[in-house]
Amino acid sequence: MPDSHSSDRFAVTTGALPSSRKVHVAGSLHPDLRVAMREIDLTPGSGEPPVRVYDTSGPYTDPAAATDIRHGLPQLRRPWILARGDVEEYDGRTIRPEDNGLDQGEATAVPEFDRAGLRPLRARAGKAVTQLAYARAGIVTPEMEYIAVRENLGRARTAELRREGQSFGAAIPDHVTPEFVRDEVARGRAVIPANINHPEAEPMIIGRNFLVKINANIGNSIVTSSVAEEVDKLVWATRWGADTVMDLSTGQNIHTIREWIIRNSPVPIGTVPIYQALEKVGGKAEELTWEIFRDTLIEQAEQGVDYFTIHAGVRLAHVPLTARRVTGIVSRGGSIMAKWCLAHHRENFLYEHFEDICDIMRSYDIGFSLGDGLRPGSTADANDAAQFAELETLGELTQVAWRYGAQVMIEGPGHVPMHKIKENMDKQLACCGEAPFYTLGPLTTDIAPGYDHITSAIGAAMIGWFGTAMLCYVTPKEHLGLPDRDDVKVGVVSYKIAAHAADLAKGHPAARLRDDALSRARFEFRWKDQFHLSLDPDTAQKFHDQTMPADGAKLAHFCSMCGPKFCAMKISQEVRDEAATTGMAEKSAEFMAGGGEIYVAPPQADPFA
Amino acid sequence: MPDSHSSDRFAVTTGALPSSRKVHVAGSLHPDLRVAMREIDLTPGSGEPPVRVYDTSGPYTDPAAATDIRHGLPQLRRPWILARGDVEEYDGRTIRPEDNGLDQGEATAVPEFDRAGLRPLRARAGKAVTQLAYARAGIVTPEMEYIAVRENLGRARTAELRREGQSFGAAIPDHVTPEFVRDEVARGRAVIPANINHPEAEPMIIGRNFLVKINANIGNSIVTSSVAEEVDKLVWATRWGADTVMDLSTGQNIHTIREWIIRNSPVPIGTVPIYQALEKVGGKAEELTWEIFRDTLIEQAEQGVDYFTIHAGVRLAHVPLTARRVTGIVSRGGSIMAKWCLAHHRENFLYEHFEDICDIMRSYDIGFSLGDGLRPGSTADANDAAQFAELETLGELTQVAWRYGAQVMIEGPGHVPMHKIKENMDKQLACCGEAPFYTLGPLTTDIAPGYDHITSAIGAAMIGWFGTAMLCYVTPKEHLGLPDRDDVKVGVVSYKIAAHAADLAKGHPAARLRDDALSRARFEFRWKDQFHLSLDPDTAQKFHDQTMPADGAKLAHFCSMCGPKFCAMKISQEVRDEAATTGMAEKSAEFMAGGGEIYVAPPQADPFA
Repeated sequence: MPDSHSSDRFAVTTGALPSSRKVHVAGSLHPDLRVAMREIDLTPGSGEPPVRVYDTSGPYTDPAAATDIRHGLPQLRRPWILARGDVEEYDGRTIRPEDNGLDQGEATAVPEFDRAGLRPLRARAGKAVTQLAYARAGIVTPEMEYIAVRENLGRARTAELRREGQSFGAAIPDHVTPEFVRDEVARGRAVIPANINHPEAEPMIIGRNFLVKINANIGNSIVTSSVAEEVDKLVWATRWGADTVMDLSTGQNIHTIREWIIRNSPVPIGTVPIYQALEKVGGKAEELTWEIFRDTLIEQAEQGVDYFTIHAGVRLAHVPLTARRVTGIVSRGGSIMAKWCLAHHRENFLYEHFEDICDIMRSYDIGFSLGDGLRPGSTADANDAAQFAELETLGELTQVAWRYGAQVMIEGPGHVPMHKIKENMDKQLACCGEAPFYTLGPLTTDIAPGYDHITSAIGAAMIGWFGTAMLCYVTPKEHLGLPDRDDVKVGVVSYKIAAHAADLAKGHPAARLRDDALSRARFEFRWKDQFHLSLDPDTAQKFHDQTMPADGAKLAHFCSMCGPKFCAMKISQEVRDEAATTGMAEKSAEFMAGGGEIYVAPPQADPFA
Repeated sequence: MPDSHSSDRFAVTTGALPSSRKVHVAGSLHPDLRVAMREIDLTPGSGEPPVRVYDTSGPYTDPAAATDIRHGLPQLRRPWILARGDVEEYDGRTIRPEDNGLDQGEATAVPEFDRAGLRPLRARAGKAVTQLAYARAGIVTPEMEYIAVRENLGRARTAELRREGQSFGAAIPDHVTPEFVRDEVARGRAVIPANINHPEAEPMIIGRNFLVKINANIGNSIVTSSVAEEVDKLVWATRWGADTVMDLSTGQNIHTIREWIIRNSPVPIGTVPIYQALEKVGGKAEELTWEIFRDTLIEQAEQGVDYFTIHAGVRLAHVPLTARRVTGIVSRGGSIMAKWCLAHHRENFLYEHFEDICDIMRSYDIGFSLGDGLRPGSTADANDAAQFAELETLGELTQVAWRYGAQVMIEGPGHVPMHKIKENMDKQLACCGEAPFYTLGPLTTDIAPGYDHITSAIGAAMIGWFGTAMLCYVTPKEHLGLPDRDDVKVGVVSYKIAAHAADLAKGHPAARLRDDALSRARFEFRWKDQFHLSLDPDTAQKFHDQTMPADGAKLAHFCSMCGPKFCAMKISQEVRDEAATTGMAEKSAEFMAGGGEIYVAPPQADPFA
């Protein structure tokens, strides 16, 4: 169980997951790499090897690592970044009260993170310091090799596995080589969100030929009592499997809290900078300017945000296409830009300044997440003219960003009924040159507020199968309120299910290792192993305890559903034993080969017609 | 909120759902029909008509109906059954202590339901009293017209609706006529589970050209303190939308409890008679005989069970096909029959006596639910030789049952990864002559015990879309323990989501009316309407209250996600207003027709290559 150290006001959730150890795997091109993974130990004597699983949780689940959020995580990537010789330290932008939503002279209520004199990095003049630029130049970065090792987990055993599945045109290799990673990034088919000012993050990749990833959104509480509480939202989400986290905070102290989050995040952090820019103009969309927006990008770039949602596809001419919709524009960023366009009767300034934005992105290696400001907010509006017009614009912008060497992914819907999901995915692939798709849900029906983690997990699993690279989670509170800690966990686990179901269906060569290990544990009544292999061991064990609390029940060769007299799997094991001793398999094969008919239907056609 | 009358030991959950009324719609062929539906009233002055929704909850949600479980529900169908002139009352089988799992002379601990002298009905000699037999004879029964009216809800407005969707060969009509119901039943493509001894049930249909249905399983508690508690499980499941309920009780008092359940059930009841038969031989599968099994069928037939799961497809020769599986045989019924086959080295007696069973089914109009005893218990075993060999046998047996005029549906998997779901559905349609498919899940991954309502809702939505007629729910406790009241509700709502998502995707002509009404409510900030239209109004409202408890917040034109300054939908409404007044839509159309290009990409191909 996680430790909480509630006595310590800088403590966050730490501790290994049950029966799990942190392991580190070395690289070969870059021998100093230590790629972190989780290894789940199974019952001794069961003959089952430990199962390695992808691990997003960083040092917090490693009892051997001392973490202290006041110091931040180790700067894993800093030597690699400096070694490339294309960045410079500089003084950076001065932090102003309005960055924290404060008036002049008003003090921030939360403590500053102590950067210990560390200054931001940026590209030296004219350089693109992006993983895309390196990939195109034929350079296999340490980040790329880290990712290859990380994605490869389990594939050493794939010789045992039949590859099956329907990949819908994905090209998932048997083994991921560093060169494969480089090639996918060079093609723009995968992104590595890796701001040079966020060296604490463990490299990860988002692309359809890799494991399907998930994102969790977090936001600040209205009254922030402690920075640890804010950092713990991130730690908690990554503990359960969030591959990236978007910080959607608004209001006061957001700059400072963002600093604490980034310094302590083992995963890439995304933001929607227009939210903060809007705060700086008192919430009045029409008062937004390019200068204020640009300044906000630089502010967040220097902190280390790894990807920005940019709603540059909400063009003036697209806005009226939403007028007859059932639910108009439901994206916050989309509605802000639509309002700006209408107020000024001018083209979206993000669109007009898109090349200026590209210049910033390539100078820090921030990934574009081109926002779908016109995504449907109801199944009625799915795949309509507004949505597809924007998607076509996002395709144009992808090409522009790529010319600048900036990495790009594309955000997707929203609410989409099942029969329109494939069309949406195919359109994205066609319009956007296979740039990774990053989808919210999609929600497959509108009638279940309170259960939208489920309405959307259905759509997420499907679109992940069809080719989406990262799934943005939805919590049970979607449409209704702000998620609490339990909601975040339920959202993350629901989306790990969707992502994993997609990996299985795509025919990922190693995805089923964990399923099969858990199924064997189930069949052999290794209850503890079944819990330990599950996405949420704590809940699995808790549910079992509710019906069969005794610890001895964890050894029982039956379960609460059928009871001791009556267990299907117990009987089935007897069947297996009998089959083994009597050579029944052979007899059966003989019998089936001979036609296998015992029952003979009566000759008459319909005796009772 | 539901009333519980905990002071009354025969009380169950009653009371209307929020803002809902029970309405009754008349028939035309049978003018005395009163088809029950739920009508949801929306905010006065909103211009929104009440929304009619399918209602499985029976009289318990009708404040105008007095219910008392000691008397049972009104015998709606009894006059129709008697009017057909093909049944006879008879004394019926004598209830024996072993029917309740008791020793000779031991008294049952639960009170008997008072049948008030009512004797069972059966077909007069040589008659098939099934809806299938009537349908073939060209008779439109009151049951069929009841179903036509019930399924038609909302379709009067379908003239407004575009039909869209992908039906994968289903043939859902714009309007359901009684003749269409008859024809689908006559073809065997739909079943009406309607034992002549369960006249209390409101007629419903299971077939791919109708609304996708869901089943909830209930079982007795180990220590039954009150019959009301057992009946309330049924009432609770149907309150949230269970279309049928399977009583999977084992152990003591099951005959008596089943009587209470059936007499008080507004939905068809299914059972797995082999469970009770096994109890009668002390749990020793090898001691089962045809005579004991037959006697159990008659016992349950006379009580009014509407469909029986019969594992007649687990043939001796199929058993060894499971020997190399990861999880062997996981169906209880399947493992019982496999054990019997191996113990006696004989063909499954259910297979050998299948025609005798048909004779019973047609004499009471009990539907076959041909059990998939060899369904996969892990994604590794999906669609394997054992599963498909059994499915082919079930196809043969379907033809036999149809010759006898018995109604048939086919049970399906289990654990199946997404890429194998369509193959499974297509194989079922091909093997079983389009007899309705009734699937458990399927679960799309094995690694999430504690969340299998979600792993399986993904598969259920997909297979429902592809053609499954009824989805058997899975609760969060699957694989771990026995579901409690909350688990049952979560399971039912999760499956209502899957079924509804399937209806939408199939292009059901009226399915989206509720989605659109809820989406309009959402867009117009009619919070109460949004709750009332949702599948679980209580949870939706509770979640909203957690963030914004004040009652005034239910009138707020913003929500907790964005706050008052910053609401996407509020801005979007301003956009809409502006578009309406400035004629922007026309301007935009002009602009887009002219090419719509404002952004001009720079001439150079790659400025930074």
